[in-house]
Amino acid sequence: MRPVRHAVILAGGSGTRLWPASRRARPKQLLPIGPGGETLLAAAVRRGRAVADNVVIVTGASQADATREAVPGVELIVEPTGRNTAPALGLAAATLLRRDAGAVLAMLPADQHVTDEAGLAKAFDLGLSAVEADDVIGTLGITPTRAETGFGYLEVEAATPNTVVAVLRFVEKPDRETAEKYVASGKYLWNAGIFFASANRLVTELDRHAPAIGRAVQDIAAGLVSAEAVYAELPSISIDHAVMERATRVVTIPASVGWDDVGSWAALPALLGTAGGNTIAGEAIVLDGAGNIVFSDTLVTTVGVSDLVIVKYGDAILVMKKDSAQDVRKIVEALSERGLQRYL
Amino acid sequence: MRPVRHAVILAGGSGTRLWPASRRARPKQLLPIGPGGETLLAAAVRRGRAVADNVVIVTGASQADATREAVPGVELIVEPTGRNTAPALGLAAATLLRRDAGAVLAMLPADQHVTDEAGLAKAFDLGLSAVEADDVIGTLGITPTRAETGFGYLEVEAATPNTVVAVLRFVEKPDRETAEKYVASGKYLWNAGIFFASANRLVTELDRHAPAIGRAVQDIAAGLVSAEAVYAELPSISIDHAVMERATRVVTIPASVGWDDVGSWAALPALLGTAGGNTIAGEAIVLDGAGNIVFSDTLVTTVGVSDLVIVKYGDAILVMKKDSAQDVRKIVEALSERGLQRYL
Repeated sequence: MRPVRHAVILAGGSGTRLWPASRRARPKQLLPIGPGGETLLAAAVRRGRAVADNVVIVTGASQADATREAVPGVELIVEPTGRNTAPALGLAAATLLRRDAGAVLAMLPADQHVTDEAGLAKAFDLGLSAVEADDVIGTLGITPTRAETGFGYLEVEAATPNTVVAVLRFVEKPDRETAEKYVASGKYLWNAGIFFASANRLVTELDRHAPAIGRAVQDIAAGLVSAEAVYAELPSISIDHAVMERATRVVTIPASVGWDDVGSWAALPALLGTAGGNTIAGEAIVLDGAGNIVFSDTLVTTVGVSDLVIVKYGDAILVMKKDSAQDVRKIVEALSERGLQRYL
Repeated sequence: MRPVRHAVILAGGSGTRLWPASRRARPKQLLPIGPGGETLLAAAVRRGRAVADNVVIVTGASQADATREAVPGVELIVEPTGRNTAPALGLAAATLLRRDAGAVLAMLPADQHVTDEAGLAKAFDLGLSAVEADDVIGTLGITPTRAETGFGYLEVEAATPNTVVAVLRFVEKPDRETAEKYVASGKYLWNAGIFFASANRLVTELDRHAPAIGRAVQDIAAGLVSAEAVYAELPSISIDHAVMERATRVVTIPASVGWDDVGSWAALPALLGTAGGNTIAGEAIVLDGAGNIVFSDTLVTTVGVSDLVIVKYGDAILVMKKDSAQDVRKIVEALSERGLQRYL
């Protein structure tokens, strides 16, 4: 009998990269910027259902209500506080392992964008099949489309699409020059933060490489301790650092599926398209301007401006240049410094 | 006995030049952008009280409630509909004339900006004294500080400040080249739309040059007809065209009193000043940018943008370049064309 496949969706995150639309209590995966106006989370759940028998979401306590509302009926595993991806995936794996010793997991972030969903499903199936056949740990390796310095990379011998290839090395976010070499070499893939593993192997690897986390998540899953009692003391560490970089038999599935991170407002045109040269979500009149990104719950009118990001959501407005869309963090920092955390 | 001096404040206007803060029902004179955060209308009433024994406001029916609220206790003369300044001033003159045959009027728009209020009061006193001495019609002639193409001009023999000089000619808004010649000549003054006349003379001149208006406003003042019954049929014409350009014995008081029209958002820095290089009314965080004008009832945050006008008021947002601030009319037109008049 084939093992039961579970899609584990990571829906935590600090939530301010798309501020002011995203807030701490309403992170970007809950914004309606997925295909056809669905939330990114709903799109992730749909993609999970396409490849798995069961879907669970790991989210934070402060976002649980909003998450439940966005995707009713999906099982939630709630972290009392965010401690990065290793504790989150460990808790999900330990929880699923107790009810299904043969559980196989596809683990994916809730806030990503994919244009080729059929291609993605095919790559997921390859990854899950490799786990089922050889108990490997798998990753999705995205064929780079630019010399991105915002992602980690996977080094491989040859990035043959739709095959299972060994990962030689995980590498950190490179500088521009290094990223360009990576892309030119054809031997590096983007680490998309999408992983495949049996629940048993993931918990075993945590026990080996991050025993505090492995012990805690198994105790929580067994009901021996409350998450509230131990979670805040866990190291905040990514699954990449805790397990992936240290484990043996790690493979990747090279894929070209129109994948991208939704890392800033500059990503919105890829998600929502453009009309008349501008990307508009909400009601807007944009005269004599192009390349603008407007996301607003209030009428926005512009005349003579181009390449701006203009966001209004609730009690705050953001105006910035599109090519410095990462600078939203400066605003978030300034709000914190000035005691205006209520806007975050 | 000295005649009673009345300040007649014109507080009508279409209200969309400072859209979206100004609306049809809340024109710019009701915005709190006067000295110390008072409304422009309150500032005009204060200036009127400084030179006159009595203040009356002429306003439109759709703005009467908001006007009453902004300056409680000031007498209103309400027009059923706006028909430009000749009917408005005629109605005020005819109304005051019935109760005071010797009434002398200083007539001024409600939406202007003056830095030297003492100088303005002195010029007003000169104008009113000339009316009382010789029954002239007077205007205020502002010494030009730039080759403005948005104002009409008054031609004089010599623009000696704080004297009463004859107006040779009213001239329409000039083109740039002509405006530059005017300013260089020293013989042209800005027509500020501020006038002095006895009520009797104004009504007499209307009877002579615009008899339909003269008759109607006297009938309304006498209670013989209702304003509602006749006002909409009156020609929509300015007092300049109806009377000033045609009358004899028209004088002006040349004045340098820091006067300016509040014609667009670009005027806001002159009214509110700048702090850290930006002009801000409301709560805002402006990072890495200068020359911005922000007027908002909602938190505005910007990073890396300069020389923008950013306005949020109620249900609408405007973003435009400061140096094309007149383009707000394009937005107003677009809203009308698209059936979105509810935003005006």
